[in-house]
Amino acid sequence: MTLLEQMAVLGQKAKAASRSLAQLSTADKNRVLLAMADAIEASRPAIQGANAIDMENGAKAGLSAAMLDRLNLNDKRVAAMATGLREVAALPDPTGKLLDERVRPNGLKLRKVSVPIGVIVIIYESRPNVTADAASLCFKSGNATILRGGKEAIYSNQAIARIMLDAAVKALPGFPVDAIQVVPTTDREAIPALLSLTQYVDLCMPRGGESLIRAVTECSKVPVIKHYKGVCHTYVDREADLKMAEEIAFNAKCQRPAVCNAMETLLVDSPVAAKFLPKIAATMATHGVEFRCDEISESILAAAPGLDRSMVKRACDTDFFTEYNDYILNLRVVDGVGEAIDHIATYGSAHSDAIVTRNEATAQRFLAEVDSATVYWNASTRFTDGGEFGMGAEIGISTDKIGARGPMGLDELTSYKWIGLGNGQIRG
Amino acid sequence: MTLLEQMAVLGQKAKAASRSLAQLSTADKNRVLLAMADAIEASRPAIQGANAIDMENGAKAGLSAAMLDRLNLNDKRVAAMATGLREVAALPDPTGKLLDERVRPNGLKLRKVSVPIGVIVIIYESRPNVTADAASLCFKSGNATILRGGKEAIYSNQAIARIMLDAAVKALPGFPVDAIQVVPTTDREAIPALLSLTQYVDLCMPRGGESLIRAVTECSKVPVIKHYKGVCHTYVDREADLKMAEEIAFNAKCQRPAVCNAMETLLVDSPVAAKFLPKIAATMATHGVEFRCDEISESILAAAPGLDRSMVKRACDTDFFTEYNDYILNLRVVDGVGEAIDHIATYGSAHSDAIVTRNEATAQRFLAEVDSATVYWNASTRFTDGGEFGMGAEIGISTDKIGARGPMGLDELTSYKWIGLGNGQIRG
Repeated sequence: MTLLEQMAVLGQKAKAASRSLAQLSTADKNRVLLAMADAIEASRPAIQGANAIDMENGAKAGLSAAMLDRLNLNDKRVAAMATGLREVAALPDPTGKLLDERVRPNGLKLRKVSVPIGVIVIIYESRPNVTADAASLCFKSGNATILRGGKEAIYSNQAIARIMLDAAVKALPGFPVDAIQVVPTTDREAIPALLSLTQYVDLCMPRGGESLIRAVTECSKVPVIKHYKGVCHTYVDREADLKMAEEIAFNAKCQRPAVCNAMETLLVDSPVAAKFLPKIAATMATHGVEFRCDEISESILAAAPGLDRSMVKRACDTDFFTEYNDYILNLRVVDGVGEAIDHIATYGSAHSDAIVTRNEATAQRFLAEVDSATVYWNASTRFTDGGEFGMGAEIGISTDKIGARGPMGLDELTSYKWIGLGNGQIRG
Repeated sequence: MTLLEQMAVLGQKAKAASRSLAQLSTADKNRVLLAMADAIEASRPAIQGANAIDMENGAKAGLSAAMLDRLNLNDKRVAAMATGLREVAALPDPTGKLLDERVRPNGLKLRKVSVPIGVIVIIYESRPNVTADAASLCFKSGNATILRGGKEAIYSNQAIARIMLDAAVKALPGFPVDAIQVVPTTDREAIPALLSLTQYVDLCMPRGGESLIRAVTECSKVPVIKHYKGVCHTYVDREADLKMAEEIAFNAKCQRPAVCNAMETLLVDSPVAAKFLPKIAATMATHGVEFRCDEISESILAAAPGLDRSMVKRACDTDFFTEYNDYILNLRVVDGVGEAIDHIATYGSAHSDAIVTRNEATAQRFLAEVDSATVYWNASTRFTDGGEFGMGAEIGISTDKIGARGPMGLDELTSYKWIGLGNGQIRG
């Protein structure tokens, strides 16, 4: 069998399984998820045994300490997978929701109802716990999954999937065993082969760095929900409460800089720049933040007392496009909300952007004109998160505009169908 | 400039225009649409002059009579474009709708609001009136459009777009003139170039035959809303009201066979096949329908009195995958609703499928398990249409599951954004 044929078998099986999944009751799905959680806990030794092989191979292959840490399934991480499965079981079923209803003049009743998407391919990097997280969210929403993790985690991923499936079949005889499949090869060509199967695969969700996502988008013939990067901005307006602005900007940059909703660029309105920039810089300096400045902000910080000059640098154009995921912050002084909006349109990633101002008209303009998945008025960009949005769980954040946009929970893993209920209506 | 650079200029201008469009009030958009309608009527000679060049070139190039007819902008078609623009003006604005609202425990208020998608590329074939229809629907929903019609219609398309834009600028000074652009070259390579511009183009909607849509999907790096084909089924269950079934099947096949929501395959449950098939075949025979039969239905029709034997043929497997758009119908006898569902899953196009039955449980199973954009109980598949669904206008029908599914009106040309309203919330 060629690689394409192998992938077609996977896809065909997943499609068939997705038809069975769509018929499961909520109670059955929850029973399966709880049984999977118990099995993950009970099978910790087997999971860790498989993980030890991956860890050993990874060490031999010279993986970095950080990569090996991400790969490692310690007791806490195994327990967290089980907890995650129980949390997904507790969430409401996103399918079968009545989204719209209308009765036509001829009496035809139309209902728009949420349904599973079908078959979802998840492509991810080294963390093997994603296997349980992603598969459980897709399963709860009635979708079959084909999982393609990092090649360094293949033994761990296969063990987790097998344990989940064994538990599912025990809990629910007749459970479609192809509902969760791990791509059985580490061949890189498996990805374009899989993503050429428009007849079987309904969606691909790549989770990882920008280069992974671009490579997947480049080769895919099926729809891809993307999250290229999070270049998030906070704009401090001339009419901002500067104390609030300081707290929001500090939180957006320093509370957890390595995540996508952390701020990368602080835009400060010119009338308040001389007052605001030295204060926020002094606060951030306590966390070792390095500043990449435009000309004006650099000159303001150069005159600021007590600031380590070595941490103040001149930004190049590329910096403003960069997601640092680190204690580095771009600074730019702009002339009003219009320039802030223009900057974000040019350099932003349409992820999360915030304005701090007391002026409602200025805020409304920013909220309307900034074309990002999430826009904030007087709040930190760090809130862009499924949990913080009350979605209960998150499978990712979309910076796309077709299908889901922003944080994606269970509802965002559904499509819809129209159901027409008639009593013999024909078209005239 | 290379072709890619030319397309990038188009894309960049469209993106900039889309930002301005998103700020227009509903009243301004409607004023522009009405002015465009008046201008189309007033400029009928100019439109028909440009169209005459296309018609002459088409005749020289040997286009078929049917193609030339589609290309022809007679008085009636010009008037219909103007009427269409006025109808779009009368429809409600699909943007700015509050889709969801929630207040988080920390007081952060989250609003999910409908917004334009941004820049939409429309690829279509010879009918130049699509230029006005598609551009007006995109415009009303706040989107910029890049139009790529058939090369045989380029003078007509450019004339229509120019007249619409001139009217827009007169009606609304400052109107973003790049909101509606026609690709200025007939070079085929313009399409892949345009659809590689993920930074400018948000969506592509190809309108045309399956081969056009497959070619577009194959080359596109931006999301594509597809409508491959309409292989629609009617399943007549053993518990059907056979009189109703006959009316529905006849309507689905014969009322307008050349459209995507017409029936291509009639599935008949075995207990009623011998009774139902001769009747429906006799009725359809009056319209010259040719039957492509499985073994059982062929033997039933062979014994039917008064039926022209030359119109009864044996179906091959490919026939069941085929959208005839003609007076040809596949017939198959199945054993119950399960086999009908299996047949549709194998051969269908996920467009529109109907069941005729009195049994509610059987109907519910069909409605749940048939994974099509629209499923009907006791009604004709011919209702899958934006107008029939009460959407007011239709830009297409999607057989995709990401983004819009089924008939697409103005609402289906929007995305959404999340707006977070705070009073200083930071993440803990």
